[in-house]
Amino acid sequence: MTPEWPFLSLGAGPGEVSNRTLRDHMRPVVGHYDPMFIAIFERTIELLQRVYETRHDVVVLQGETVLGMEAAAASLFAPGDVVLNLVSGIFGKWFEGFITRAGAQTLEVGVPYNEAIDPEDVRRALRAHPGVKFLSVVHAETPSGTVNPVRDICAVAREFDVITIVDTALGLGGEPLHVDEWGIDLAVAGPQKCLGGVPGLALLAISPGAWAAMERRAHPFRRSYLSLLDWRDTWAARRAFPHTPSVSLVYALESVLAQVLEVGLERHIARHRAVAHACRAGVSALGLKLWPARDAIASSAVTTVRTPDGLDAGALLARMRERYGVGVAGGYGELAGTTFRLGHMGRSAHPAALGAMLAVLERSLADLGRPVAFGAGVGAAMATLATWE
Amino acid sequence: MTPEWPFLSLGAGPGEVSNRTLRDHMRPVVGHYDPMFIAIFERTIELLQRVYETRHDVVVLQGETVLGMEAAAASLFAPGDVVLNLVSGIFGKWFEGFITRAGAQTLEVGVPYNEAIDPEDVRRALRAHPGVKFLSVVHAETPSGTVNPVRDICAVAREFDVITIVDTALGLGGEPLHVDEWGIDLAVAGPQKCLGGVPGLALLAISPGAWAAMERRAHPFRRSYLSLLDWRDTWAARRAFPHTPSVSLVYALESVLAQVLEVGLERHIARHRAVAHACRAGVSALGLKLWPARDAIASSAVTTVRTPDGLDAGALLARMRERYGVGVAGGYGELAGTTFRLGHMGRSAHPAALGAMLAVLERSLADLGRPVAFGAGVGAAMATLATWE
Amino acid sequence: MTPEWPFLSLGAGPGEVSNRTLRDHMRPVVGHYDPMFIAIFERTIELLQRVYETRHDVVVLQGETVLGMEAAAASLFAPGDVVLNLVSGIFGKWFEGFITRAGAQTLEVGVPYNEAIDPEDVRRALRAHPGVKFLSVVHAETPSGTVNPVRDICAVAREFDVITIVDTALGLGGEPLHVDEWGIDLAVAGPQKCLGGVPGLALLAISPGAWAAMERRAHPFRRSYLSLLDWRDTWAARRAFPHTPSVSLVYALESVLAQVLEVGLERHIARHRAVAHACRAGVSALGLKLWPARDAIASSAVTTVRTPDGLDAGALLARMRERYGVGVAGGYGELAGTTFRLGHMGRSAHPAALGAMLAVLERSLADLGRPVAFGAGVGAAMATLATWE
Amino acid sequence: MTPEWPFLSLGAGPGEVSNRTLRDHMRPVVGHYDPMFIAIFERTIELLQRVYETRHDVVVLQGETVLGMEAAAASLFAPGDVVLNLVSGIFGKWFEGFITRAGAQTLEVGVPYNEAIDPEDVRRALRAHPGVKFLSVVHAETPSGTVNPVRDICAVAREFDVITIVDTALGLGGEPLHVDEWGIDLAVAGPQKCLGGVPGLALLAISPGAWAAMERRAHPFRRSYLSLLDWRDTWAARRAFPHTPSVSLVYALESVLAQVLEVGLERHIARHRAVAHACRAGVSALGLKLWPARDAIASSAVTTVRTPDGLDAGALLARMRERYGVGVAGGYGELAGTTFRLGHMGRSAHPAALGAMLAVLERSLADLGRPVAFGAGVGAAMATLATWE
Repeated sequence: MTPEWPFLSLGAGPGEVSNRTLRDHMRPVVGHYDPMFIAIFERTIELLQRVYETRHDVVVLQGETVLGMEAAAASLFAPGDVVLNLVSGIFGKWFEGFITRAGAQTLEVGVPYNEAIDPEDVRRALRAHPGVKFLSVVHAETPSGTVNPVRDICAVAREFDVITIVDTALGLGGEPLHVDEWGIDLAVAGPQKCLGGVPGLALLAISPGAWAAMERRAHPFRRSYLSLLDWRDTWAARRAFPHTPSVSLVYALESVLAQVLEVGLERHIARHRAVAHACRAGVSALGLKLWPARDAIASSAVTTVRTPDGLDAGALLARMRERYGVGVAGGYGELAGTTFRLGHMGRSAHPAALGAMLAVLERSLADLGRPVAFGAGVGAAMATLATWE
Repeated sequence: MTPEWPFLSLGAGPGEVSNRTLRDHMRPVVGHYDPMFIAIFERTIELLQRVYETRHDVVVLQGETVLGMEAAAASLFAPGDVVLNLVSGIFGKWFEGFITRAGAQTLEVGVPYNEAIDPEDVRRALRAHPGVKFLSVVHAETPSGTVNPVRDICAVAREFDVITIVDTALGLGGEPLHVDEWGIDLAVAGPQKCLGGVPGLALLAISPGAWAAMERRAHPFRRSYLSLLDWRDTWAARRAFPHTPSVSLVYALESVLAQVLEVGLERHIARHRAVAHACRAGVSALGLKLWPARDAIASSAVTTVRTPDGLDAGALLARMRERYGVGVAGGYGELAGTTFRLGHMGRSAHPAALGAMLAVLERSLADLGRPVAFGAGVGAAMATLATWE
Repeated sequence: MTPEWPFLSLGAGPGEVSNRTLRDHMRPVVGHYDPMFIAIFERTIELLQRVYETRHDVVVLQGETVLGMEAAAASLFAPGDVVLNLVSGIFGKWFEGFITRAGAQTLEVGVPYNEAIDPEDVRRALRAHPGVKFLSVVHAETPSGTVNPVRDICAVAREFDVITIVDTALGLGGEPLHVDEWGIDLAVAGPQKCLGGVPGLALLAISPGAWAAMERRAHPFRRSYLSLLDWRDTWAARRAFPHTPSVSLVYALESVLAQVLEVGLERHIARHRAVAHACRAGVSALGLKLWPARDAIASSAVTTVRTPDGLDAGALLARMRERYGVGVAGGYGELAGTTFRLGHMGRSAHPAALGAMLAVLERSLADLGRPVAFGAGVGAAMATLATWE
Repeated sequence: MTPEWPFLSLGAGPGEVSNRTLRDHMRPVVGHYDPMFIAIFERTIELLQRVYETRHDVVVLQGETVLGMEAAAASLFAPGDVVLNLVSGIFGKWFEGFITRAGAQTLEVGVPYNEAIDPEDVRRALRAHPGVKFLSVVHAETPSGTVNPVRDICAVAREFDVITIVDTALGLGGEPLHVDEWGIDLAVAGPQKCLGGVPGLALLAISPGAWAAMERRAHPFRRSYLSLLDWRDTWAARRAFPHTPSVSLVYALESVLAQVLEVGLERHIARHRAVAHACRAGVSALGLKLWPARDAIASSAVTTVRTPDGLDAGALLARMRERYGVGVAGGYGELAGTTFRLGHMGRSAHPAALGAMLAVLERSLADLGRPVAFGAGVGAAMATLATWE
């Protein structure tokens, strides 16, 4: 069968959103200067500050997460600047292009894409290169399903007065993150991963130090879709917008932020951790190998699995979706084919979704001729969930 | 945790509806004489005829399924009439009240509530009581999760020129049903079971013979919310309504009928059968006992399970829902406490929903101290689904 | 053009609902014993008590308003009872059928259908007929757009210890109504008129005296879709339901009750009054005649207009809807053809809706060849709205 | 009163969307590589080609319309290029910043902001400056409510082999536009104006000549949120995305494109023209002055009105919205205060919306102490609509 939609969409994001999110998403579309919209935008900003755990500014850009990363680079970096770019996966490497485009110079510290950055390597690099002004790092790599020790990395950066830029697209809401406490200067995320929201916005937390760096430039970056200062000059200064915001996406964002805070941020993250742990237990019990080198660096939002020899990952995913209604994600970029990804984020960081996903994974593996002990994966996963709440 | 809503609502109906159903449900609320509403009502009637497999009239009453059963009794039965009421469960017994209220007399053929009616018993009763004018039977008993052989029963009834009334609330869309071919005179169902819809309407198929019986009465039953002739005199005669229809419920009904027919009625029913079969395999593998006496009479929409000794069914259901987000149903009426019910109907007649439900059932049984071989239930269920489509 | 839907649906109800109502209407469809649904149902009951201004029981039946009137008759009246039925319009006359069906006897006090009942006539009738046990009256007649003085009528009834039944389908939320203060024993309304909601439920307020009358009967009326005692024995007694409630309609009802109370019931009613007043001013300025005999008895929710000589009301309505997107209502029953109706209820009791409706009415009258001073109607209407809020 | 939302949102866009748009907007959020999303994206592209009347490529960027303009500049212009920028309003002038940022040089032909560009001035400028490679023009200025003769301007540009960039944010769907026939190289619009959609996307039509110009550059512009070539290399080449698309906004876009084409593009535009004409008649009849210098250049989507002496435009708008529920727009940028704007676009290009808006405008003017002949504005407007369909 080819169903109209998958029964559950459990990929690398976006995916399942709650009924409440959909309802809030469809609030009346009004002009962006209508007082109701202004009030909701203000509330969204406040909620986002709470989720980012920052007293400083947050900015909501009207485009996908990557717009936030490019805007950060364009707004911060000037020709001649040196940026220490930490690369543990595809999105870390991707950022190099934005550094270059801004006319700055990249210094890279890298590890294999199934590993995480060692903060000691960061210290060594910063010691060896005293001219470094910025450090960029991906909190959690969506293709690899791995997490970098952002807390420790930022602590090192602060020793050297280096401004930190953190891509936490897959981290916010799924991994612990304390922007002010950890001294992160600029964080970027999106609504469509662990917040369980609708894609199309970039969510930034910006420290006073980052603003100062933008303004210190010989030619501060203004009058562009990529300009962060434009937002400061309009929204922050006088509740205006540099261009039309995505009205309905703001509605949905406000909704998911409120939902996360009602559950409690810590508990929301704990749920992600518990389900991810269970997912890895289930996958391993099926004899499949995880992509991350160590359990300690595995993402709470995405489990990246190595495609076993002799299996066509595309055929597996098609089988899961078309016959059993569960959509998961293939590998991305260099990891395409050799990996596939099981998502458990936002609303889907849930035992019921996990049970469905693993049951369907087992059934589909069997359909494709792999030897499967039916129930082994789901059983191992559920067995770990005694303390879920 | 007490989630705002269960992740999946898998009880005895109503339950999970598709996104498309919700969207169609929220079409603009207009006056019921607006041409758009009239057009949608007309289309609904045509679709319902196709789902009932009848060329004769169908009527949509503005209330729950049981309104349809009471309306049938009130419209058909006159004082002095004898009705053969077949009782294999709670809802069969319930109908006796409507027979009595209409002033008619009940003749009962019954079996234990975990069994099904034997058509030979019907033949014997009709032979012994030549004055019987009507026969009433429940197609599938929602409390018991059992199915009666309606085809054979109606064949017997036709031998004796007895008018048949079939409560197919749990049957329509989940069990084979061919109204004209089987010679059913009056069938009653609702949108919220195997059609996967929204509750609040009663769906009736009415044969010319049934209409004639209503009109033959000394005082035909008119000018009441329970009157079927009122609908014939208004809608069928001149596209008017005897009272305001439930506009948005008609929208949702039209939607689910169309969805079922797009999949194909036969295939829709086959899916119910496959998932129900898998569910029973899973439940049995967990060492639980099924309520129906034999597999052959088990419902495709609800699996009724005997509560094992020493288990508090209420505590189990609360655990499943509150901690793991899956809502299933307790036992009903006389079966409360001693049974509980797993639903797989409409959108939820699906392997992914079944995987989630059984995984959560296992986990919850273990939480309550029952010995559980994790994965045994889900595994056994999924193993049967090789031919699902 | 034949638009998919009218731009505005401004008939005699149902019609325009707010975006918030639609959103709440589409909350997840769950089993009716799910704790979330139970909680919402409980809250709905409390809100309804506040809107009815009663400390006593309210009951929500799962069918259109008229079900509530028939249920009241079936539950209250026994053979031999005499019911004083006040008739000032079509729905008042309609109730006679329910009195008769219940085996009771009707005593009628009537006036022409463009008039209102005089409480003195009620007093005279009750004096002349000391055996009368019940009095029934329609608060506001939807076909006529007229209002009866329910407060004074009920005061008279109390002098004679007569139990009062009030059909306030068009009154609740649009006309002042204080159930306890006025001593109404049984009131019936629906969500789809002045509450601005979705049709399919009947909303009843029931006094201890009315319950007592139901129970005093030799054979209290139970085990029927029409039985009010069934609801008392299940919902009121143990938070259960006699049959499946219309889950999504309860959601929508809870929503509109909350919305009305947030605005404030008095203010909500004042808005209806102001817009109705403006509507009548506009209609009169166009040279059209109002159906009600006097302004003092005109409904705040529906303005019934006499079709001028030589005009085809059906053609006018088709023109308004198909060309200019505004749906209004034709005359009903005996008033079909000779009248048409302009609705201003719930969300549509609003100056903007009124402006649109009258502008389109003018344009359409002109299209049909009537002499029209463009702007006269809208202008006269808006001129009255200086104190709207 | 301060209503939760305006009854009608009739500003300069975004504003009222249809129920169908909202429903389609809330289709399930799935991963962007889910086959259903891919299918909808493909269909969206095809529909957009039909609305743009082009056989060539269209690109949907994930951000507001202005992103499309900046992307066009960044993708097309190289240092040393000369761009003839036609300036008849604020958005025309705005584009100069993008030209400069791209390192190109601006040559301006300007007129007062209540006027339109004369194609002969364009010819003169191009003759005088043979090195011009690009020409940029705003089709319809949203602040001014004026329209430029894009057809004739593009005809002149083709004489000189100049590549044309047209900002048709307010034009597409409201003014005639034939991309291929008129020889437009790059057009940019959004869903939230005359298409009646939801903001957050930029819709581009790109000619082979424009693509060639992008690729001819010494350093073609790639690997940026602003890069058009990135979309060509991914979506056009292999049905992939350079970053996550705004899933739900694409759903809404597909919906409004389909709705416009079902009505018929020509008829959709004719409705805008008729309602705009009526709006101007109404405004003038109230003694207000229009901002555009001549009727022939007035926009079909927005009527910009000069604020009369002694009136506080902000107070007027607040009155209209807060007391009478109609949201219109203030003046923008340099035109703030001295003008305000009445919108009639997309779903709101409708006589009923116009009637409501003008009725409320009259009432509000009177409330603020302006002398108003009630009905004069609405009446004059409706009088013009005899041929509306």
